[in-house]
Amino acid sequence: MPHKSTSGSLSDDALGLERIEFFSDAVMAIAITLLALDLRFPDLPPGAPAAELPARLAEMAPRVVGFVISFAVVGVYWSSHHRYFRHIRRYDNRLLVLNLVFLLLIALMPSVASLLGRYPDVPLAIMIYSGAVGATGLAIGAVWWYASHNHRLVDETVDRALIRRRNLVALLVPLVFIASIPIAAIDVRLTFGLWFIGPFLAIFLARGWERRRVRRKG
Amino acid sequence: MPHKSTSGSLSDDALGLERIEFFSDAVMAIAITLLALDLRFPDLPPGAPAAELPARLAEMAPRVVGFVISFAVVGVYWSSHHRYFRHIRRYDNRLLVLNLVFLLLIALMPSVASLLGRYPDVPLAIMIYSGAVGATGLAIGAVWWYASHNHRLVDETVDRALIRRRNLVALLVPLVFIASIPIAAIDVRLTFGLWFIGPFLAIFLARGWERRRVRRKG
Amino acid sequence: MPHKSTSGSLSDDALGLERIEFFSDAVMAIAITLLALDLRFPDLPPGAPAAELPARLAEMAPRVVGFVISFAVVGVYWSSHHRYFRHIRRYDNRLLVLNLVFLLLIALMPSVASLLGRYPDVPLAIMIYSGAVGATGLAIGAVWWYASHNHRLVDETVDRALIRRRNLVALLVPLVFIASIPIAAIDVRLTFGLWFIGPFLAIFLARGWERRRVRRKG
Amino acid sequence: MPHKSTSGSLSDDALGLERIEFFSDAVMAIAITLLALDLRFPDLPPGAPAAELPARLAEMAPRVVGFVISFAVVGVYWSSHHRYFRHIRRYDNRLLVLNLVFLLLIALMPSVASLLGRYPDVPLAIMIYSGAVGATGLAIGAVWWYASHNHRLVDETVDRALIRRRNLVALLVPLVFIASIPIAAIDVRLTFGLWFIGPFLAIFLARGWERRRVRRKG
Repeated sequence: MPHKSTSGSLSDDALGLERIEFFSDAVMAIAITLLALDLRFPDLPPGAPAAELPARLAEMAPRVVGFVISFAVVGVYWSSHHRYFRHIRRYDNRLLVLNLVFLLLIALMPSVASLLGRYPDVPLAIMIYSGAVGATGLAIGAVWWYASHNHRLVDETVDRALIRRRNLVALLVPLVFIASIPIAAIDVRLTFGLWFIGPFLAIFLARGWERRRVRRKG
Repeated sequence: MPHKSTSGSLSDDALGLERIEFFSDAVMAIAITLLALDLRFPDLPPGAPAAELPARLAEMAPRVVGFVISFAVVGVYWSSHHRYFRHIRRYDNRLLVLNLVFLLLIALMPSVASLLGRYPDVPLAIMIYSGAVGATGLAIGAVWWYASHNHRLVDETVDRALIRRRNLVALLVPLVFIASIPIAAIDVRLTFGLWFIGPFLAIFLARGWERRRVRRKG
Repeated sequence: MPHKSTSGSLSDDALGLERIEFFSDAVMAIAITLLALDLRFPDLPPGAPAAELPARLAEMAPRVVGFVISFAVVGVYWSSHHRYFRHIRRYDNRLLVLNLVFLLLIALMPSVASLLGRYPDVPLAIMIYSGAVGATGLAIGAVWWYASHNHRLVDETVDRALIRRRNLVALLVPLVFIASIPIAAIDVRLTFGLWFIGPFLAIFLARGWERRRVRRKG
Repeated sequence: MPHKSTSGSLSDDALGLERIEFFSDAVMAIAITLLALDLRFPDLPPGAPAAELPARLAEMAPRVVGFVISFAVVGVYWSSHHRYFRHIRRYDNRLLVLNLVFLLLIALMPSVASLLGRYPDVPLAIMIYSGAVGATGLAIGAVWWYASHNHRLVDETVDRALIRRRNLVALLVPLVFIASIPIAAIDVRLTFGLWFIGPFLAIFLARGWERRRVRRKG
């Protein structure tokens, strides 16, 4: 077993960090799986189920789309968390609190996704969803910003350019969703378009940066 | 703690891989346990509960059968994931995305199993279930195919024959379920028969291969 | 990272075993936590909630008792799993299947506990619960029996007396619950009495054995 | 893989401890995520959903506040568990049992939080919630007290002053909630005030102690 530190406010033990990552992974895994709970088919009233089934399933289509979007969002945030914590070597109480705020917002995802799945054409529902997704992204961004600022908690070998790039990537997804809040007031379909393009754009840009960096180093 | 890589698009750190395996395990564990949620006994209307109970429990029999099938399916996919990742040593963004697609389909299992449990005699429900199970199998197959192709992400010591064999095994379960889709249109009972025989056949063949290989080596 | 074996039907890699333990832990953790879902307070009809609340909460008392019993049962099975796997060093496909059968029965616990919580005075509900708890205990017992028989999968240093003792302990809890099935037909209260005394008796005996062994060795 | 002990009642293997921490983390992660399940928006009756939505969402405000409080409570207990187990090096059956009692109370949190969210103005609901939160805190306190008393299960290097301080911190949160039980009978709003100030006070005091200790050592 790795060294267990008995020291004070700044902890640098690998095992402690592993438990934080583990607990975060578990919360994210549960939230991402519970997203699908809303796709559970409701009991039909006693009647002709076989005949009504296709119509009832068709009604669930927006929920399925909402599920796929929300799954992708939590998946992207999980990847970010994964990527950030590969560089983090120490932790303090503030990192724990920031991480818990992020997890609180992740835990809310099934509820706000369920709201969106039921009212995909109501601007208020879309705004709440966008706000929640955006806030979650800002929270994971804050975790990274806090940890990487002046190499506070990250490995000393992490170069400044990487930190700057990660800071930008961390802001991309939440900015897309926060930008979509006023757009929902104009036309709900524009919001959906932005959501679909946004994450792909973010991943595309992030990977472009990575490649350029690797090429430069090579 | 193992070495944490700060490198670019291709990551070969054991810890990063462990977190991917861990997150996947957690999602599969949650999905496999939530399968049983549908067996939760509904509240009887205020009346003679003790007398009605046996009849109500008998009505749940198809759900119990569906639960056992779905549990076996997710269990087989978990074993495959477990077996594949024992050979995988590196990961990149595409592997993460393929793995997330697999997990998305795993997260859907409780919902499609619930649909099957409620409409075990409706061809459409059976087709959706078969399609979902088949797609999940293709997704885990794609994870393995992508990782093992030209030893892209697997250990160099993994021999080509093993990769070829695993590719075939990965296709067996999904093929059984996809083949059962048109059969459901003819007779629902044939589909159930195929499901029951299919996985056992797959496991039997897979183990036969393993044994033959070990014998050949010995 | 520990050695990853690429060998055939008998695997002795620590990492593979760790993932099996991990997956099992996750399923048990989810099942044990979902036990409490049934204690969720149902919405009161619009009326005088503050006045009706005490009466409604009192109605839930049998569910709370059922929750505590079921939590203790899953907790005891988790301890057994934990204890057995500390000695297990290798695994094969059969161990995986036996472990999955155990986990399937664990996943059923919230449903059968929910049945018991709703019909604590109906012999059929008590028999189903006793049968499920007993079967789960036999399954974890089978895992241990299979692994320890002729030191098939356990450490060579595990002595025969310990294996024999663990075999007996593994049978104690399921025997208590299986014995309570016919008793439920006579008087439901006798069953509850047996359940309460049973596990304590099992733990007491198990610890007595352990102590005697330690004393003998010292 | 670390050394697996085959010894008797007192186990000091790191792997066994890791599984206990892991299982506890999983239960806490599930409970903390299920807290949000109660925020799932209920289906509106067929009518004008877009118009009714804001009013219905406003009705959920107390549940959201309750969710945030409960999330913070479980988060604080998780941090305590994390902190205590960093010092624990051995375990015995009694520690397992105390830890399971703590986890049983953690598993109850979503249910008692749900009760509070529905009846935030009913003193009885607040008293049950306060009692449950207080009892959970006493349970985790008991885990620490049992483990640290005479250095029974903790590292020998842990100094007595730290143990004494941790004992006090362990009592702070439960004392706040237990103290709020009689206050709820006087005025419900006083209870809420106490809850909000309490944890911050506890964290503030705990961190003050930590800092003073570090300064003294430096």
